[in-house]
Amino acid sequence: MPTTVPPVTLDDVLDAAARLKGVAHRTPVLRSRTLDALVGAEVHLKCENFQRVGAFKFRGAYNAVSRLSPDQLARGVAAYSSGNHAQAVALAARELGTTAVIVMPEDAPRSKRAATEGYGAEVVTYDRYAEDRVAVAEGVAAERGLALIPPYEHPHVMAGQGTAALELLDEVGELGALLVPVGGGGLMAGSATVAKGRFPGIRMIGVEPEAGDDTKRSLEEGRRVSVPVPKTIADGQALHEPGELTFSVNRRLVDSIALVSDEEIREAMRFAFERLKMVVEPSGASALAALLAGRVGDVPARVGVIVSGGNVDAERFASLCGGGE
Amino acid sequence: MPTTVPPVTLDDVLDAAARLKGVAHRTPVLRSRTLDALVGAEVHLKCENFQRVGAFKFRGAYNAVSRLSPDQLARGVAAYSSGNHAQAVALAARELGTTAVIVMPEDAPRSKRAATEGYGAEVVTYDRYAEDRVAVAEGVAAERGLALIPPYEHPHVMAGQGTAALELLDEVGELGALLVPVGGGGLMAGSATVAKGRFPGIRMIGVEPEAGDDTKRSLEEGRRVSVPVPKTIADGQALHEPGELTFSVNRRLVDSIALVSDEEIREAMRFAFERLKMVVEPSGASALAALLAGRVGDVPARVGVIVSGGNVDAERFASLCGGGE
Repeated sequence: MPTTVPPVTLDDVLDAAARLKGVAHRTPVLRSRTLDALVGAEVHLKCENFQRVGAFKFRGAYNAVSRLSPDQLARGVAAYSSGNHAQAVALAARELGTTAVIVMPEDAPRSKRAATEGYGAEVVTYDRYAEDRVAVAEGVAAERGLALIPPYEHPHVMAGQGTAALELLDEVGELGALLVPVGGGGLMAGSATVAKGRFPGIRMIGVEPEAGDDTKRSLEEGRRVSVPVPKTIADGQALHEPGELTFSVNRRLVDSIALVSDEEIREAMRFAFERLKMVVEPSGASALAALLAGRVGDVPARVGVIVSGGNVDAERFASLCGGGE
Repeated sequence: MPTTVPPVTLDDVLDAAARLKGVAHRTPVLRSRTLDALVGAEVHLKCENFQRVGAFKFRGAYNAVSRLSPDQLARGVAAYSSGNHAQAVALAARELGTTAVIVMPEDAPRSKRAATEGYGAEVVTYDRYAEDRVAVAEGVAAERGLALIPPYEHPHVMAGQGTAALELLDEVGELGALLVPVGGGGLMAGSATVAKGRFPGIRMIGVEPEAGDDTKRSLEEGRRVSVPVPKTIADGQALHEPGELTFSVNRRLVDSIALVSDEEIREAMRFAFERLKMVVEPSGASALAALLAGRVGDVPARVGVIVSGGNVDAERFASLCGGGE
């Protein structure tokens, strides 16, 4: 087999970390005696729900925008997202003195649109029943000469996302395993690059919702497999196939994928709320859910978990977790 | 006027801090760009919702239990509380190798009872419509030779509570004002002792729910005033008069009291949830609410806020904050 250069390396993540210094939060690593007792291991939670814009996405977006040429920064950037990537690109653009156009569905929640505009971005809407968002975004970008910042299919995005795992491992040292939520696979690609680079023996465990097990299937088949668009509360993980670049990294570095049900995610969100006093969105809670629900076999003595985001408003949290069982 | 020795001094708080080292969490001080912009000041949040048992109460309880004689520790401790003090005394007793009896109403929430028993305490119930809890607790304590640990009327309890403000000021330096929720007044007495001891110019601002303005009235009249038992969602502040010891401290050191409505508390809880990604109980949110609702005049450039607790379960949070307006 030919040796190919991986799209993201440990050095790329270290470079991203230098760029993010003083711009992204160095988020806390939390411990809980209750959690350790339940799991029977020392659990280290890397809390990206406390990151700027409320999710790890700011890391990748900022790193990618910061790499653009002065000419490109003078023209601006674009992205398509109705989720955390939208706000991440909007804020990264503002921090770097450029402008952002974010392509969102017409019926995106008002709060998401307001938050994105609050960071100074222009929102361009499309009809998600009639138009393809990638085509709309590429059209806007081409017309105005903007650089499109993809949510995961980009080396600088993956490298930026890897800085969360880098901070975690720098702070707590070697871990037996690291659990990472997997959507498009960018957070995992960056995390696995760092973790295996630092500690080759670490087990990298991805976590997907049961309904969206595209990466699990793809790893089993050794090629990218599509699944029907998943129905899950974990909206950040409702993707139907792995990215091409991210999968090229993850097929080499990911040891296994654990699946979690929506109910297990809800339980983890409730646990985070009541015992850890913190707010975690469904996708952000999936890796914690896998651990709490016993979906991970042979839990090592020291395990890391990336809590990837906290963007869930009080109403949605109440409807997901407040009903009582 | 005769010079009297205050019941709690800065040295008492420093001594408590030494006892609590490695036992209580040194809780984080959080900042939020959004909060600063809304308030027009640099706001430093001391997050006691991340304290053990989810509230500052552990500090005072542990300090008080740790001061007991070996003989007394061999016999055990008692407390009356259906709130955070119950769990605080239960955990403090366990940590110090003694036993605790907690007197709770028969109809206390099952979760509170289970949590208290989970820390190894024995729960003794009483009929809150027919019996007086203090009398019940004193009876149990006398009969079994237990030391009663009061929720605020004790120098060691006040000194322990002061360690939160001590950590905050050690971390961030001088502040123009410090906002502290006031219930029985123990947290304020300890906080004000530290803050005025370190920085005599700091403004100490207590915060009470509108319905329970007993400390505000008492300060205005220069003597302890009773109000009808307050109806408020801030259950930790639903007291009808200040403590005698706590008031003797607070009348000297508190500059003013701000009042907040239940709706303003709900707004602050929602803000903490959605913007800070953290869970705060109603009493714990009152000082933040005063700041957000503009109940504090002349906000100085740098202000501290004690977020005193986070014990609200997902169902109650949903019913308080999840309904939409």
